[in-house]
Amino acid sequence: MSAPLSPIRPGYLLFLGHERALLDAKTARGIQQWRPELCIGQYRLDAETVDLGLPDMTPAEAFAAGARTMVIGVAPFGGGFAPDWIDPMVDALAGGLDLASGMHSRLTDEPRIAAAAREHGRALHDVRHASGRIPIATGRKRGGRRLLTVGTDCAIGKKFTALAIHAALRDRGIDASFRATGQTGILIAGGGIAIDAVVADFAAGAAELLSPDNAPDHWDVIEGQGSLFHPCYAGVSLALLHGSQPDAIVVCHDPRRHHIDGYPDYPLPSLARCIEANLAAARLTNRDARCVGIALDTSGMDEGERAAAIAAATAETGLPAFDPIATGAAPVIDQLLS
Amino acid sequence: MSAPLSPIRPGYLLFLGHERALLDAKTARGIQQWRPELCIGQYRLDAETVDLGLPDMTPAEAFAAGARTMVIGVAPFGGGFAPDWIDPMVDALAGGLDLASGMHSRLTDEPRIAAAAREHGRALHDVRHASGRIPIATGRKRGGRRLLTVGTDCAIGKKFTALAIHAALRDRGIDASFRATGQTGILIAGGGIAIDAVVADFAAGAAELLSPDNAPDHWDVIEGQGSLFHPCYAGVSLALLHGSQPDAIVVCHDPRRHHIDGYPDYPLPSLARCIEANLAAARLTNRDARCVGIALDTSGMDEGERAAAIAAATAETGLPAFDPIATGAAPVIDQLLS
Repeated sequence: MSAPLSPIRPGYLLFLGHERALLDAKTARGIQQWRPELCIGQYRLDAETVDLGLPDMTPAEAFAAGARTMVIGVAPFGGGFAPDWIDPMVDALAGGLDLASGMHSRLTDEPRIAAAAREHGRALHDVRHASGRIPIATGRKRGGRRLLTVGTDCAIGKKFTALAIHAALRDRGIDASFRATGQTGILIAGGGIAIDAVVADFAAGAAELLSPDNAPDHWDVIEGQGSLFHPCYAGVSLALLHGSQPDAIVVCHDPRRHHIDGYPDYPLPSLARCIEANLAAARLTNRDARCVGIALDTSGMDEGERAAAIAAATAETGLPAFDPIATGAAPVIDQLLS
Repeated sequence: MSAPLSPIRPGYLLFLGHERALLDAKTARGIQQWRPELCIGQYRLDAETVDLGLPDMTPAEAFAAGARTMVIGVAPFGGGFAPDWIDPMVDALAGGLDLASGMHSRLTDEPRIAAAAREHGRALHDVRHASGRIPIATGRKRGGRRLLTVGTDCAIGKKFTALAIHAALRDRGIDASFRATGQTGILIAGGGIAIDAVVADFAAGAAELLSPDNAPDHWDVIEGQGSLFHPCYAGVSLALLHGSQPDAIVVCHDPRRHHIDGYPDYPLPSLARCIEANLAAARLTNRDARCVGIALDTSGMDEGERAAAIAAATAETGLPAFDPIATGAAPVIDQLLS
């Protein structure tokens, strides 16, 4: 068991197995999109495996080229390791690489992988699972500033929005850290805590641990999870909101979605209601919490539709709206720093 | 690993170890107070052990008298099993009794206890830990009616209030079940789920599992946990609130407490604010949720102080107020059934 925030050593070999579907390589693609400088090579088990355009490497070649961790970049249905992955994974450990996986199955539960890691002194990062000792929350105000992405639903752009805001802050020369709370985010950031995998009593404590005391001008940009309006995950969202004690929130929304995904009896809240509920809850741990922008998923819209959606969100809320992928997060930075 | 709701077999032998302090036997005393009919005997390891006034019995005598589970009724500092408890616990398993414990240490982690349970086909109930497979929440409306106790803080009477309301409903001949969400409650009820020990993603699902579909006139009276105003545990409270989809809530409060216990920077909310926040959240999964009463902890007050506290709470909220221990819950039942 590693510490809750044990860092994943940078320099990644992206393991793609026999994956045929680009969609199922989304972990690898997310890392490649947001941290191309981390991606040393790809490891494909045969010629028909999806190709991300990275150099093909064996673990030994990747180690020689600077890689230190082999990341399982695919998420096959069922969430388990294929039997023919075990030999390559053991080879990677023998060749000097740690392993990192965001799958439901745990690296540490595979006897041959666990034994090889022990033998070679390598780390195993099961980033979907929270490991190590997490304290309960203190509620104490911490130094530094924090932004948390929240949402009208799950899977509505909270990770991408946080990454885009983090990138925009860095572009302005502002000291900022991206704080990951889900498996893909953790692999992108090289560390973090899968907040929804923490025992409920400790979830707010995990959020506190994730964004520790910092310099007064430093921004933590924290990846949100779930939604206060989700009948399954609102508790996770509230614990993250309280533990993050954000100075600023950004609400993520898809204007084409009308009910919670998979829960047709649960209508999506209006932007105004979502802002109000999140700020009311956030103010328990930070009385100065405010909403600084609306992040819209406008994927698949044409330019005119996108501009109309952004204008409508701004008209409804009086706040800058943007698409973190299509337009970038620059519009929200002025608001954030005002 | 047992199923999440595997029942604890009734007929308890209360194990008191060498406990000298009545206060540290509060698990046993809670069971004795609320379920005296379950308590067949006590098992004290020496003559100086606290005496609950039950017949002293060995496991074999207790089994012959109808006991089927030995309950660890003490909670020594540190939360572990004393070394000299192991022999008596193995004897109990050999003598036909299951074991149930609300301690942090797990029965299943003690090799001799685990081996004896296997050998004799006995169950081990580690009720502080959630075991077995818990589904994620569906948000689907279930049949039957539900009351949840909520609070302005932790440790403010939510369990006692639920037990008192359950007893008052039964006294009126109304079909009702007490649903336990914490370790002492589970031992009293003979089943339940320690909701704060569930992985955060599944906490609302655990609350749904705890109070399944039921007859239209049946009431589940659900033990609340934490508080929406607690910087550490609000996520647990929200998940329980959403998963319970209560028709009615009762707010538990101690009029002498002015800040969250142990968190001096966090003032207690007013009763009005606590009602409003809980109802706003509850209405996500049950639009008809309403508050039916205020349960006050008036322990240590004299009659005049108690009457004044109850009158003040009623004046502030327009709702019946009561002390579940001192006055009983009858005042709230009319409101509940109106």
